[in-house]
Amino acid sequence: MLSPIIIEDAVKAALKEDLGHGFDITSNVLIPAGQPAKAVLRSREDGVLAGLIVALSTFSLTDIEFDMTVMSEDGAEIKKGDVIAEIIGPARSLLTAERVALNFLSHMSGIASITAKYVEQVKDTGTEICDTRKTLPGLRLFQKYAVEMGGGANHRFGLDDAILIKDNHIAVAGGIKEALDQAHLLAGHTKKIEIEVDTMAQLVDVLENGKADIVMLDNFELDELAKAVEIAKGQIVTEASGGVTLETVRKISETGVDYISVGALTHSVKALDIGLDIET
Amino acid sequence: MLSPIIIEDAVKAALKEDLGHGFDITSNVLIPAGQPAKAVLRSREDGVLAGLIVALSTFSLTDIEFDMTVMSEDGAEIKKGDVIAEIIGPARSLLTAERVALNFLSHMSGIASITAKYVEQVKDTGTEICDTRKTLPGLRLFQKYAVEMGGGANHRFGLDDAILIKDNHIAVAGGIKEALDQAHLLAGHTKKIEIEVDTMAQLVDVLENGKADIVMLDNFELDELAKAVEIAKGQIVTEASGGVTLETVRKISETGVDYISVGALTHSVKALDIGLDIET
Amino acid sequence: MLSPIIIEDAVKAALKEDLGHGFDITSNVLIPAGQPAKAVLRSREDGVLAGLIVALSTFSLTDIEFDMTVMSEDGAEIKKGDVIAEIIGPARSLLTAERVALNFLSHMSGIASITAKYVEQVKDTGTEICDTRKTLPGLRLFQKYAVEMGGGANHRFGLDDAILIKDNHIAVAGGIKEALDQAHLLAGHTKKIEIEVDTMAQLVDVLENGKADIVMLDNFELDELAKAVEIAKGQIVTEASGGVTLETVRKISETGVDYISVGALTHSVKALDIGLDIET
Amino acid sequence: MLSPIIIEDAVKAALKEDLGHGFDITSNVLIPAGQPAKAVLRSREDGVLAGLIVALSTFSLTDIEFDMTVMSEDGAEIKKGDVIAEIIGPARSLLTAERVALNFLSHMSGIASITAKYVEQVKDTGTEICDTRKTLPGLRLFQKYAVEMGGGANHRFGLDDAILIKDNHIAVAGGIKEALDQAHLLAGHTKKIEIEVDTMAQLVDVLENGKADIVMLDNFELDELAKAVEIAKGQIVTEASGGVTLETVRKISETGVDYISVGALTHSVKALDIGLDIET
Amino acid sequence: MLSPIIIEDAVKAALKEDLGHGFDITSNVLIPAGQPAKAVLRSREDGVLAGLIVALSTFSLTDIEFDMTVMSEDGAEIKKGDVIAEIIGPARSLLTAERVALNFLSHMSGIASITAKYVEQVKDTGTEICDTRKTLPGLRLFQKYAVEMGGGANHRFGLDDAILIKDNHIAVAGGIKEALDQAHLLAGHTKKIEIEVDTMAQLVDVLENGKADIVMLDNFELDELAKAVEIAKGQIVTEASGGVTLETVRKISETGVDYISVGALTHSVKALDIGLDIET
Amino acid sequence: MLSPIIIEDAVKAALKEDLGHGFDITSNVLIPAGQPAKAVLRSREDGVLAGLIVALSTFSLTDIEFDMTVMSEDGAEIKKGDVIAEIIGPARSLLTAERVALNFLSHMSGIASITAKYVEQVKDTGTEICDTRKTLPGLRLFQKYAVEMGGGANHRFGLDDAILIKDNHIAVAGGIKEALDQAHLLAGHTKKIEIEVDTMAQLVDVLENGKADIVMLDNFELDELAKAVEIAKGQIVTEASGGVTLETVRKISETGVDYISVGALTHSVKALDIGLDIET
Repeated sequence: MLSPIIIEDAVKAALKEDLGHGFDITSNVLIPAGQPAKAVLRSREDGVLAGLIVALSTFSLTDIEFDMTVMSEDGAEIKKGDVIAEIIGPARSLLTAERVALNFLSHMSGIASITAKYVEQVKDTGTEICDTRKTLPGLRLFQKYAVEMGGGANHRFGLDDAILIKDNHIAVAGGIKEALDQAHLLAGHTKKIEIEVDTMAQLVDVLENGKADIVMLDNFELDELAKAVEIAKGQIVTEASGGVTLETVRKISETGVDYISVGALTHSVKALDIGLDIET
Repeated sequence: MLSPIIIEDAVKAALKEDLGHGFDITSNVLIPAGQPAKAVLRSREDGVLAGLIVALSTFSLTDIEFDMTVMSEDGAEIKKGDVIAEIIGPARSLLTAERVALNFLSHMSGIASITAKYVEQVKDTGTEICDTRKTLPGLRLFQKYAVEMGGGANHRFGLDDAILIKDNHIAVAGGIKEALDQAHLLAGHTKKIEIEVDTMAQLVDVLENGKADIVMLDNFELDELAKAVEIAKGQIVTEASGGVTLETVRKISETGVDYISVGALTHSVKALDIGLDIET
Repeated sequence: MLSPIIIEDAVKAALKEDLGHGFDITSNVLIPAGQPAKAVLRSREDGVLAGLIVALSTFSLTDIEFDMTVMSEDGAEIKKGDVIAEIIGPARSLLTAERVALNFLSHMSGIASITAKYVEQVKDTGTEICDTRKTLPGLRLFQKYAVEMGGGANHRFGLDDAILIKDNHIAVAGGIKEALDQAHLLAGHTKKIEIEVDTMAQLVDVLENGKADIVMLDNFELDELAKAVEIAKGQIVTEASGGVTLETVRKISETGVDYISVGALTHSVKALDIGLDIET
Repeated sequence: MLSPIIIEDAVKAALKEDLGHGFDITSNVLIPAGQPAKAVLRSREDGVLAGLIVALSTFSLTDIEFDMTVMSEDGAEIKKGDVIAEIIGPARSLLTAERVALNFLSHMSGIASITAKYVEQVKDTGTEICDTRKTLPGLRLFQKYAVEMGGGANHRFGLDDAILIKDNHIAVAGGIKEALDQAHLLAGHTKKIEIEVDTMAQLVDVLENGKADIVMLDNFELDELAKAVEIAKGQIVTEASGGVTLETVRKISETGVDYISVGALTHSVKALDIGLDIET
Repeated sequence: MLSPIIIEDAVKAALKEDLGHGFDITSNVLIPAGQPAKAVLRSREDGVLAGLIVALSTFSLTDIEFDMTVMSEDGAEIKKGDVIAEIIGPARSLLTAERVALNFLSHMSGIASITAKYVEQVKDTGTEICDTRKTLPGLRLFQKYAVEMGGGANHRFGLDDAILIKDNHIAVAGGIKEALDQAHLLAGHTKKIEIEVDTMAQLVDVLENGKADIVMLDNFELDELAKAVEIAKGQIVTEASGGVTLETVRKISETGVDYISVGALTHSVKALDIGLDIET
Repeated sequence: MLSPIIIEDAVKAALKEDLGHGFDITSNVLIPAGQPAKAVLRSREDGVLAGLIVALSTFSLTDIEFDMTVMSEDGAEIKKGDVIAEIIGPARSLLTAERVALNFLSHMSGIASITAKYVEQVKDTGTEICDTRKTLPGLRLFQKYAVEMGGGANHRFGLDDAILIKDNHIAVAGGIKEALDQAHLLAGHTKKIEIEVDTMAQLVDVLENGKADIVMLDNFELDELAKAVEIAKGQIVTEASGGVTLETVRKISETGVDYISVGALTHSVKALDIGLDIET
């Protein structure tokens, strides 16, 4: 799903960031140019893999002489100790690319792994877990891809991607009905319209208007949420948001809400511990 | 410390990432072009601020018509509820820039805040907390700046920045003495030389050679670390690394080690909750 | 609606394209550096204006010393001879920027003008005219903005923007039902699903499945189209496409179809003749 | 003639424009990763081909696994129904690249085709048809290449490319003689000097001065043009410009003028209808 | 003559090159953020100034708070000790920008100064000194501008700029006549044609053909050159090239040749010593 | 040592600079597309080679069909007449890439050659020759690499690379002791600290403070330098700078100073004469 021309740009930029003025002084000084090496990417933690193609691109963009064999794939569960890929090539380039490759891979796998835990929590409820625009600058596409690899769904990729009407938009437009009417008139037929509501009364206004495709029920108490979902069912797609955690997500899903959006999937990521072991 | 031309590049890239095909459809459709608005950046959590200038640049690069008043500064402690800055300008641009501004600010402040907690733990021991190259691709400069704002020190910014000899380099070079001799010969006089050791015997070799400026004591047990630091004291700068947590960092610092490097400061960041409240 | 940071990029690129190795040799050689000039942008043809801000940016990015007064605005009807804007500044920079400014303005106004003619044709039918992805490389955002200024609606901005299932996708997926089921399952809740059909039988399949938001009726004969629209009404948004011209568009709209998409709006554009008259 | 590094930049930019946030959601969701496909580029209209290498680069930059066989070449006449090239490769990437490839190819072939019609009109008169700087921002090189493929000649590629003195330059310089003297003094010996004249009297001034290489006879009536060309013959290259159409171009060429420049070749382009037929 | 958008790009790139990972560690660590400073650009050598606007842009792109007063201008003679400009602003930014500003200024002034010496040598002969494409990668425009400031003329700016037929082209084309005929046929009317010859016989072929605008007399002995110029006079522009030095240039110019091209002006540049003196 | 992704960027930029609007008009017009050619890079002067990989990349980035055989390597001595590499491929692309390849190669080899002369002068003294930040904008990495190939050492690559305290920094900080204390406190443990001194008294202050790693003895008279080095020996690395020439460098090195930095290595470079001979 990640396009090669987009991976290439991001990986080259990351390599240049690490190379600074343009070189890996330690490897240049200590590793002879021709020296071969073999290494394996190995997980040091259980989790879900994401970003393998990005990590491998880091090596191939550093040096054309790598041979790589893949033992796993994005979206797969990995266990502590599992070998993910084997990389054979020049030792100098291997050490130069190592950190950038791991930085992508451990961050993306961290996202996939936590997403998978949320998805596991809501198993069999029919609810889907999705991400938000609370992503890290420059990494959104890679983060959202990782959410997908963890079994989650993607919310909007950007401001151009769908209409999402929040409280400030409603205030300026003069009310829920006015905002939805205007959005429906001007949005074009290929854009969905989502609106955020904070109260049951607002939800009723949205349903009466009938022009929204999705309603975001923001920070509803559990019992209120259950009522809201019951009212909305069959008329509109429902999404719960606001302070969702691994502890609370099951109960939220049991209200029957269609989607639960979780900002922490991408704004507060714990890296999955993956290492590169060189076998000289 | 962050240069304006570098902030500008990063912020424009982040805005374009969020704008996708180039526009904020919701604001365009619902907010009249001339509509003014006033908003405040407000913390919803205690922590340490970092990235204010980056966040404010997001607004000024979106629209030249913003007036901004700053109530805090990078490196300052902030409390839940504190107003960080006031922003007056076009409502449409305000809503367009909001998410990118908060994504930078909450990520960078998250780093500063956790760094400050580590620094607080090692208070009065003389030990400094520092970061690593385990950063998120494209964000290294911003992350390392945030570490500094939290009271931490910066380790290498990239592969070109200093010599850091690890086990694989030692193996290829043929031993610690050989690696250090060669590094000293070729590195140039403006680069420091650091070497990673795993055992006391390796430390002794490093000290005997005398050409390293810093020794990284990697994954030493606490008592071994204490012995190592005692031996090394006065001869070389010492740095402890490997699986450091908020729980273990105090004891590590009490060994008298000069620096403790913590990858989690930048690879596993919990965002600080900061919001933008619009006062219409 | 066009973001300043995106206009700036496009205009700078266009200026550099025209400057080649970096200078306007004629103006450098013949116009003294300090020489002032006054010029007006004047239409030489009736039409609808689009791209004024882009054209004016060309001058301000060439030289900071321009004063500009605007007499019209994007989306306004202009008559042959109308003055659109007055520009006062250095003669040298004025002549340097002239061609790029006019290239943007006459192309975008050409699009707005022809769109307005299509929109005029379908007046009072409730049908909307929209664009396609048949745009000129690098100019899509500017072209689609011009369509909007001419009173048209925008279809997808890109491949990421909505699901649009065509015959090849249907063939691979194994049928209309299978394609729509899979798209609905995987698309995420914020993306609309459109599907292209060539026959009435396919339309019936789409309506039975119920998961598409929009049906594109491709190359239907007029009477078939009328039947199709009648069947679909109230269940799905309808869009007619295929070889639409100014001559045929009225009859197509009278079938009651919701949208008519016209590739020629952007792939075969006649520039609107707009000139820069210098008043020395 | 088009350099690979320049094609690559333009095609990658066009692909990214179409991919938006970075992916083709329809193909990702509906086409299995390994699915092969075969397709042909086929003309649906008579014309002259231009841009084949650009179109094919679109596929090869999207995916390295394409095999392509070429049945025609730039500059060749193509008939409705002709197969231009055959493309075998992954169905998903084929559908992703399709629209960008066709957008380049149909635009460039549209230019070559209309140019060829102008060239056909002036057959055997010795007059050449050439383009102008009235091109579409970002596409100039590709448009001018297409003019060449249609049998036309290229005028200046940019402001740095030759001296072209227009009425405003003359006014500032204080007259035709003064402008030409100064241009000749400062232009350097590798730049040609062209000057635009509106009247016979101006032409006489130009010929007397003797320093111009080319005279542009702007908006001359046919009989005046004939007289002008007769006077100028043998002393200077002549170029006619201003509102030239397919209907008027023959008569203009029969005056014996050396070049006729036609802005509409590039500013008002009708795409040539070329399609991609997938044979599953 | 240097366009602001092109200066901005080059200066920002140079600043980023010097900032590496993004900061001036010495100034950040030692200079308080608000500290003001005053400095002067002062020449430490006699010469001709070039690049002042580039140098000053370095300061203004580093920090918006600089006030600058200019005491000289590009193309002016400067004496050892002359103050070129006065710069008042933040000490930290002043020191950050200093080296990049001086690197541009001393290189460009070095070129202008040596060019002026060549020009002085050929005074009153009517011969002009010009540059070549033997420039430093990325700096061509700045170098050629500096040649102009030193009183020299510019040869081709690039491969697209004029036809220059060398021995290898002649060999492939099958002779001088063939090469010139083909170039004349295909070059378009706005491009000049220059041809390089090594012998008198070749010169005669060029003159007989009559289609070249300029002949480059490459590595001719002085007496041969004089004969060649005499033969060519009035029929074609003549240019001498090959191993020209300050010692030989006068005699070469006395042959009456129109232009002498000197690669060393740009490929072997001695910087002019210009310093920044801070007055605290 | 030069990373492929960095070479690629620089070479593509240089090719685009030379191609201007995008093509080599002479070769396009005169060389048939399929024509093969063989050429050799040959030195026309004795010297030291640097930049071979950069020069060869110029050909391979212009056309994928080149076969190249290398007869020398960076850092090797070359004699007048030596063949450096043989290049077989399309004649058109060969001529297009020639100038850019030579511009890199002759500039970089010029630097390596003069560096080697300085290094030869100081033979057996133990002193090393190093470069400065007085480099040409955009070429620093390539210049410093060439210094290394000539046997020199590299000083700082940029402002972020080490602390270098100059007189202005000392003045603002309030003295040598204050500046060094503050730098030591804030620099981080991976950055070296260098300080520039003009007098013996300042040197004593530096030694007393003990926190600097390197002292730059700027513009010391020879006898003073000898005294300074004697005092400093064993306590700090010493570096002499200021107006060093090939004539003076030996005597300076005989003082026992560790490093001599020479700005002219990179700011005033004489190109090494290397040519491309085509054997048709």
